[in-house]
Amino acid sequence: MKKFSNLPSDLVYESMLGFAAAHARLVNVHLDPLFVTRKNPNRSKVALISGGGSGHEPLHTGFVGVGMLDAACPGQVFTSPTPNQMLAAAKAVGSDAGVLFIVKNYAGDVMNFQMAMDMMDLEFASVLVNDDVSFDAGAHTAGRRGVAGTLVVEKIVGAAAERGDDLAACKRLGDQVNGRTASMGVAFTSCTVPEAGVATFEIGPQEMEIGVGIHGEPGRRRAAFEPAGAIVAELMAAILKDLAPRKGQEVLLHVNGLGGTPLMELYLLYQLANEHLGSAGLVPVRSLVGNYTTSLEMAGASLTVTLLSEEMKALWDAPVVTPSLRW
Amino acid sequence: MKKFSNLPSDLVYESMLGFAAAHARLVNVHLDPLFVTRKNPNRSKVALISGGGSGHEPLHTGFVGVGMLDAACPGQVFTSPTPNQMLAAAKAVGSDAGVLFIVKNYAGDVMNFQMAMDMMDLEFASVLVNDDVSFDAGAHTAGRRGVAGTLVVEKIVGAAAERGDDLAACKRLGDQVNGRTASMGVAFTSCTVPEAGVATFEIGPQEMEIGVGIHGEPGRRRAAFEPAGAIVAELMAAILKDLAPRKGQEVLLHVNGLGGTPLMELYLLYQLANEHLGSAGLVPVRSLVGNYTTSLEMAGASLTVTLLSEEMKALWDAPVVTPSLRW
Repeated sequence: MKKFSNLPSDLVYESMLGFAAAHARLVNVHLDPLFVTRKNPNRSKVALISGGGSGHEPLHTGFVGVGMLDAACPGQVFTSPTPNQMLAAAKAVGSDAGVLFIVKNYAGDVMNFQMAMDMMDLEFASVLVNDDVSFDAGAHTAGRRGVAGTLVVEKIVGAAAERGDDLAACKRLGDQVNGRTASMGVAFTSCTVPEAGVATFEIGPQEMEIGVGIHGEPGRRRAAFEPAGAIVAELMAAILKDLAPRKGQEVLLHVNGLGGTPLMELYLLYQLANEHLGSAGLVPVRSLVGNYTTSLEMAGASLTVTLLSEEMKALWDAPVVTPSLRW
Repeated sequence: MKKFSNLPSDLVYESMLGFAAAHARLVNVHLDPLFVTRKNPNRSKVALISGGGSGHEPLHTGFVGVGMLDAACPGQVFTSPTPNQMLAAAKAVGSDAGVLFIVKNYAGDVMNFQMAMDMMDLEFASVLVNDDVSFDAGAHTAGRRGVAGTLVVEKIVGAAAERGDDLAACKRLGDQVNGRTASMGVAFTSCTVPEAGVATFEIGPQEMEIGVGIHGEPGRRRAAFEPAGAIVAELMAAILKDLAPRKGQEVLLHVNGLGGTPLMELYLLYQLANEHLGSAGLVPVRSLVGNYTTSLEMAGASLTVTLLSEEMKALWDAPVVTPSLRW
């Protein structure tokens, strides 16, 4: 295992110090307990807080800022943050307008966010993100997993909170966006958790894992490697089966790299998925291509489709100023 | 070799179709010959044009837009674009204000840009970028190589052109930024050129290539893998020896991923390099961390330091609206 690190056990901490230094004009990093807040929180709005295991950067810390998250709590690599982190973050950014927790559907995250919510003394609600259509249950999961669609929920609800929507409206919108979002990924390689030091799973040089989870969880099937066209067709078929969109529906198409796949290949996937959507009678009107919800250095990618309403489109377009998403 | 592609020979073309579709509001992609222009070129300003082999994305195509490049010409993977592409790009975006070519110092790029310049009927100048301090000559090079510092030249000169600086001023500034910028990288793995189908070089599981080039060219030395602190110390020593800055100098610190290294590790490098600069009496006032000048899926990173003047700092901060750099 070759990684840029000193002690693997210090990697998250040292990395967060670098994140703090590199983005000092946008965020504050609190070290004990560890959480990130946007510079100059706006206390008159609903506070959006997310979090999860590290190793998926820029999710979630890179999305803290104006128009998106108010705070993010990073755990150790692929390990849920603690209730203590979540409560400290809520105390730092929360107000009488309430706190909305955005939680990816993994047993550890769900349990720890629930423990934090049980101890909250501010008004709160939560949105559970479970956009992964590949698989309904698995070792790390309690039902469908939350993957790259989490960014879409965070961006759209972040814009709604920024314009002043109340807690109930933000919660309702978050559930709506999650319900209109579906994702599925594929891995060509495993990743290596620094403190484990060995690959999370074995995969042959001519194999791929269709429907892989963002921690390397098993997908739908282990398959022989295929050309990109066949891969996109399989992922898009599963996504569109789940979403069952009407013809003419406007959509957001998000191609997400898992960490080790060149941008050139992600754009090729975008082209193929875009064509596929067109053939299915859908209208891709917004796009996002890049490494946003990663699995350390895993080679692979996921496709995410969100069925957009006019309101969701406007909220997607609203200004966002974070370390890793900005327009 | 597992890559998202249909025919490896079509990867650049299909990828550019996806790039065009994903960023239709920011750029136009011209297919024959292949080049990218910003939407609604401003014909009253100096036109900045760059280009080079594909496989380094987002460099250069991702930097086309307001405040940065007017056009970019992508070649095949790790292969110079042709003079024909450069001339077509110049025709599309050039005007009486002149054209500034930004050229990375590789024999093929230099030769082809020179051939294009020999056929230009607009006023033009060029800036040769050679920020890599690792090595003075090599198989693909004619002197120091142009690597991740190219982005810094393109951003700062792009802002100068946008505010109306004339051709001579843009050329002078570009040379100045290049002269005040130094970079050095390290690779943990090779990359695989799609049409070659085999790794560009061999490297053992406990080895690293210090001073690697962005096409996998040999660096200063093949070394045993070391903790991040030792790697950063070696890269920064070479960079600061080259720049010989005065104490108190303000600098830009750019940590660039080569494609296969997680963002978490890049932030750890930022932290270590930032500390190193502080110890050397320098003041990092601007930062950029991410995969910007890549080598396909190579695991590794480079550090770039630019000695900032007040003017350069203001130009760095000026608005930029491109697919991959935006503020």
